[in-house]
Amino acid sequence: MTERIRILIWNENVHERENATVAQIYPAGIHGCIAGALKSDDQLQVRTATLREPEHGLSDAILDQTDVLVWWGHAAHGRVQDEMVDRVIKRIWQGMGFIALHSSHYSKIFKRLMGTSCSLTWREAGERERVWVCNPGHPIARDLGRYFEIENTEMYGEPFAIPAPDEIVFLSWYEGGDVFRSGCTWKRGNGKIFYFAPGHEMYPIYFNSPVQLVLRNAVHWAAPDPVRWIDTCPQVPADKAAERLSIKGPRLHKEGEQGLK
Amino acid sequence: MTERIRILIWNENVHERENATVAQIYPAGIHGCIAGALKSDDQLQVRTATLREPEHGLSDAILDQTDVLVWWGHAAHGRVQDEMVDRVIKRIWQGMGFIALHSSHYSKIFKRLMGTSCSLTWREAGERERVWVCNPGHPIARDLGRYFEIENTEMYGEPFAIPAPDEIVFLSWYEGGDVFRSGCTWKRGNGKIFYFAPGHEMYPIYFNSPVQLVLRNAVHWAAPDPVRWIDTCPQVPADKAAERLSIKGPRLHKEGEQGLK
Amino acid sequence: MTERIRILIWNENVHERENATVAQIYPAGIHGCIAGALKSDDQLQVRTATLREPEHGLSDAILDQTDVLVWWGHAAHGRVQDEMVDRVIKRIWQGMGFIALHSSHYSKIFKRLMGTSCSLTWREAGERERVWVCNPGHPIARDLGRYFEIENTEMYGEPFAIPAPDEIVFLSWYEGGDVFRSGCTWKRGNGKIFYFAPGHEMYPIYFNSPVQLVLRNAVHWAAPDPVRWIDTCPQVPADKAAERLSIKGPRLHKEGEQGLK
Amino acid sequence: MTERIRILIWNENVHERENATVAQIYPAGIHGCIAGALKSDDQLQVRTATLREPEHGLSDAILDQTDVLVWWGHAAHGRVQDEMVDRVIKRIWQGMGFIALHSSHYSKIFKRLMGTSCSLTWREAGERERVWVCNPGHPIARDLGRYFEIENTEMYGEPFAIPAPDEIVFLSWYEGGDVFRSGCTWKRGNGKIFYFAPGHEMYPIYFNSPVQLVLRNAVHWAAPDPVRWIDTCPQVPADKAAERLSIKGPRLHKEGEQGLK
Repeated sequence: MTERIRILIWNENVHERENATVAQIYPAGIHGCIAGALKSDDQLQVRTATLREPEHGLSDAILDQTDVLVWWGHAAHGRVQDEMVDRVIKRIWQGMGFIALHSSHYSKIFKRLMGTSCSLTWREAGERERVWVCNPGHPIARDLGRYFEIENTEMYGEPFAIPAPDEIVFLSWYEGGDVFRSGCTWKRGNGKIFYFAPGHEMYPIYFNSPVQLVLRNAVHWAAPDPVRWIDTCPQVPADKAAERLSIKGPRLHKEGEQGLK
Repeated sequence: MTERIRILIWNENVHERENATVAQIYPAGIHGCIAGALKSDDQLQVRTATLREPEHGLSDAILDQTDVLVWWGHAAHGRVQDEMVDRVIKRIWQGMGFIALHSSHYSKIFKRLMGTSCSLTWREAGERERVWVCNPGHPIARDLGRYFEIENTEMYGEPFAIPAPDEIVFLSWYEGGDVFRSGCTWKRGNGKIFYFAPGHEMYPIYFNSPVQLVLRNAVHWAAPDPVRWIDTCPQVPADKAAERLSIKGPRLHKEGEQGLK
Repeated sequence: MTERIRILIWNENVHERENATVAQIYPAGIHGCIAGALKSDDQLQVRTATLREPEHGLSDAILDQTDVLVWWGHAAHGRVQDEMVDRVIKRIWQGMGFIALHSSHYSKIFKRLMGTSCSLTWREAGERERVWVCNPGHPIARDLGRYFEIENTEMYGEPFAIPAPDEIVFLSWYEGGDVFRSGCTWKRGNGKIFYFAPGHEMYPIYFNSPVQLVLRNAVHWAAPDPVRWIDTCPQVPADKAAERLSIKGPRLHKEGEQGLK
Repeated sequence: MTERIRILIWNENVHERENATVAQIYPAGIHGCIAGALKSDDQLQVRTATLREPEHGLSDAILDQTDVLVWWGHAAHGRVQDEMVDRVIKRIWQGMGFIALHSSHYSKIFKRLMGTSCSLTWREAGERERVWVCNPGHPIARDLGRYFEIENTEMYGEPFAIPAPDEIVFLSWYEGGDVFRSGCTWKRGNGKIFYFAPGHEMYPIYFNSPVQLVLRNAVHWAAPDPVRWIDTCPQVPADKAAERLSIKGPRLHKEGEQGLK
């Protein structure tokens, strides 16, 4: 593929503006930091969007130009408008990749894609996290060693209320004695989904070099296959059936009618 | 298990009241017909509920007494209140079984559980359907032969926009030349979910004897394991960590605080 | 179910006879220790078998009376005859449950069921292991707390070369800094399979009370559903087809012939 | 990717030499026909191998140059040497793609990868098969319509004794009234596996244009990601543990020793 993969990094961008610690760690915002990490890869074209922009920066025009959407939210899940949620989910079904970061396990979009509560346990103690590679052959683990470490992290622990992942790429070990499925993949429609746990805003986690490598690997992995998808629940009339067919019995629907939704 | 499994059959009950053909086929409603089919099994305790009842017949008191919820909807998906949808989904996560019938592929509850569009193709021509057993050892296929037939059916065809099922119990062959994954299982939280395609209201499909057998088998299969589940995203304070831990660095959350949702 | 579940505990029983430390820990053999743990549950009927018995104690007569087979092997995987391996695998396909313990990840049977190498990393340092419950609602986790601990264990670590499990019940945290998917389920044919990592023979792990509880829970979970299964690759002759069919074109096989295998 | 994907088409090549009908249909062998279909794609580099060649044409030197192996066998599954089976399976675990065609559901390699019996039902009546696309967005379905037809086919029907596929790409409808999961994917280690049912040697199925398109799509899909994989079950000594660790208790293994297999 010689064309670049078009990445949109979305951030609610609340704590960077309201909390002095976060502002100091991420002067350009979490989205700005991640954008910097992705721009080092010249196969990627990188843009950002935030909650306060019109349509949260998620207009159809912008999504038309997006192959993979990276999502970070925490304090403002409830402020994301349902219309944008529906819009993003449709794009994912059509093939747009979706990377949910850290507290985005509780974002409207991620919960809707999973169909579960996405509950977990947590502890904010600045402890050490060691992220283990479960499959060194997975594209998202490319060029990583057996594990990498994050000096200060928020613990996210089991039980994590998700459907069984298609693949588990990372498992985390915590200084405080917990474990977590910290890197998981799923597919919904044709969209590839990756959840990656590290990223609490009170620590400079997105400046961590292996974390940045994971993000670059992940957007490559999540890029859509160049294929089509239908999602219209079409009626196939009897005279278009693959086998010759004559209509029998009563009918609720008229020929050519759309189904009930 | 000597206690009976408590079944609640939910039906929107619209077409039986508004369409003369449906009224004639199902004088006691689709729910009444299915209730009759399940009551023949004395291990089951069977009740029904419909859209027009207060809280759609889905009060907490009733759900407290429900092990498996059977769902039929078609014309009135949009009239099911979101509060009831949320309530039912929480019960499913806690372990309540959920059987989605026919056009309920487009119900709010089923779509939320799947995280996909649940689109399919369809044709209302009264054609013949042959339902094949993919796994004769699956509990939902118990006492069925290699296949059974439905004389007049609405065709539901591929592509069916669902996440890969945990197991495919039935595949359907249609006279008009189509095929469909007509019996599929998933798990969400601790709830066992079964989608079963046959059941168009213009034909007396729920009087079909093998169809009734499938429904009896399915509610037995979907009955919850007697286990607990947590879904509160609890904070585990540092002094309760499994390993001795002292807090390092800045904190966003106060001790004992609930997380952001 | 009022009938008891019939358990067969198989142990290669090599190190108990050849290594003084192991002999001292398990004077009745690992199989004897596990048998004791299961016999405390009067819903279970428990027997044992070892490598040195005729047919390794896995005669057809014995397997006819077995609902769930618990397997422990380490030093003698290669000495298990292929005929017994084939025999056990057929029973699993038919519905017999199979619990693979610890170093049985490398047993012929488990590797054949998985279709992967089942490689892992390991360290024998007597370190502490904490086994976390990933799904407190899973039947195998019944009556366990959030986690349990094993004072001295052999570390089994990622990457663990298995197909994506149907469900992950346990994840382990190790004192030495590693993690592992230590409790996983799959299905092959109608057999339910559970792999449980703890159990190095140099430490008294099967005397650990939560470990014993896991084993009791697991054999209940793995008990077969009372259903049938076919596995004969049968020819369905044209005159027995569901739709009327006349034979067209040349044929390789004769009517009624068995297929090539 | 500018480098070509290196394909090896393996055929037992028995019936083309022993059966006059097959010889007439496939004068260049089934492998020759498929090679022609793939060579039309200049992103592919195509070679063939057959059972009678030294090492069945599966030497290490040849496998070193193979990204995706396409496999056709029927009459001679038992004559494939176990050493070659082991060799091929290791390559698959490392990432080599594997396409199993038609009666290869009963090949030693495919059965070993699945861990199930791979039984199905069948009928050789030259009936019509219609192959439906379950996911029009899947790379293996690229450029296909809603379905394609095969004028004369051998029926392969349910139940098909396989583990639940990662994805079902195709479902087949048969004139005789049966259905089949005729296009399925799995992963084992890092190898992508695709089973495709059409291909009975008594009919010219591999000359069918959509069938050829499926094969071209499939080898693209199955090409390995350029990643590494370990499969050696390495011991990690205590002094190399991620956390500082001192050895406690007795030991079975010596430092640096390989584990028991």
